[in-house]
Amino acid sequence: MKTLEAFAIQPIGIIHSELKNRKDAPRSYNEGAPNAFLEIEPAYSDGLDRMRVGDEIIVITWLHQAHRDVLKVHPRGNRANPLTGVFSTRSPDRPNPLGLHRVKVLDIKAGRLHIGPIEAIDRTPVVDIKPVLDVSDY
Amino acid sequence: MKTLEAFAIQPIGIIHSELKNRKDAPRSYNEGAPNAFLEIEPAYSDGLDRMRVGDEIIVITWLHQAHRDVLKVHPRGNRANPLTGVFSTRSPDRPNPLGLHRVKVLDIKAGRLHIGPIEAIDRTPVVDIKPVLDVSDY
Repeated sequence: MKTLEAFAIQPIGIIHSELKNRKDAPRSYNEGAPNAFLEIEPAYSDGLDRMRVGDEIIVITWLHQAHRDVLKVHPRGNRANPLTGVFSTRSPDRPNPLGLHRVKVLDIKAGRLHIGPIEAIDRTPVVDIKPVLDVSDY
Repeated sequence: MKTLEAFAIQPIGIIHSELKNRKDAPRSYNEGAPNAFLEIEPAYSDGLDRMRVGDEIIVITWLHQAHRDVLKVHPRGNRANPLTGVFSTRSPDRPNPLGLHRVKVLDIKAGRLHIGPIEAIDRTPVVDIKPVLDVSDY
C-alpha cells in the first residue's frame, strides 16, 4: 500500500545525444560517455540566467526507459554480484528513475547547453539542474 | 508552452526531523543541520537490501514547501547577491523542487534509517536513495 501523495514532475528540458538506446550507453559517465546537448524548454530559460561556460553542474534526469517495479538488481548487470537493493546501486531501474550527472558546461547558446561527458541517452528528459558547490559535492 | 510529458513521482519514504518548518532549517547540511530519521514505505523496503550502517548515501527529497513558479532568486535570500537563475543556485524554489542530501547511515532498523546531518524539514517526502561512489561524487 502506498500511503504518500504522488507529485507531478515536469521536464524542464531534454537531452540530445549520439547515444540512441540504452544498450549503447556506458554504465557511467567515466566509461567513455560522449558530450551532449541539453535543450531547455523556453518556459524555463530564465532559470539559466548567470550560468557560465566552464561551470560544473549536476543535471538531474528522468531515466524514461527504466523499469520502475524493480527493487533488487545484480549490480552492473553481472550475476556474479549478489542481488542488492536498488537504493544501494546506481541502477537506472528503481521506483523513481532519477539520474544524477555531474558535467561541465562547454557552451551556452539560446537555451541550449553543450555539456559532458554524460551517459544519458537521446531524448532523456531533464528535470533539474544544480550548481556543484565543492569538489566533494554530490 | 510546456511540450514535454510530465511524470508521476511516488515518494518511497518520509523524513522525520526536529526541524518543523522552513524558516528553522539551515540553508545547507554543514550549517548546523541535525540528524533525522528516514522512514521507508513498506512497499519499497526491499530496496534497502544490503545497505549497511556507515554507508554514505545521497537522499533525494521532494521539497514539498517550495515555490515551483520561481525561476530567479537572490542566492541565499540575500538581496546583495544579484538575481540568478535557479539552475545556478541551490534554492529550494525551482520548477521541480528536488533536494540532494549527502548523508551517512547511522543506524538501520526495520525500514527506518537514522541519517545525517540533513537540513530537510519534518515530513519532507523522499523520492530516491543512491550510494555515494567516490569522494568527488555528486
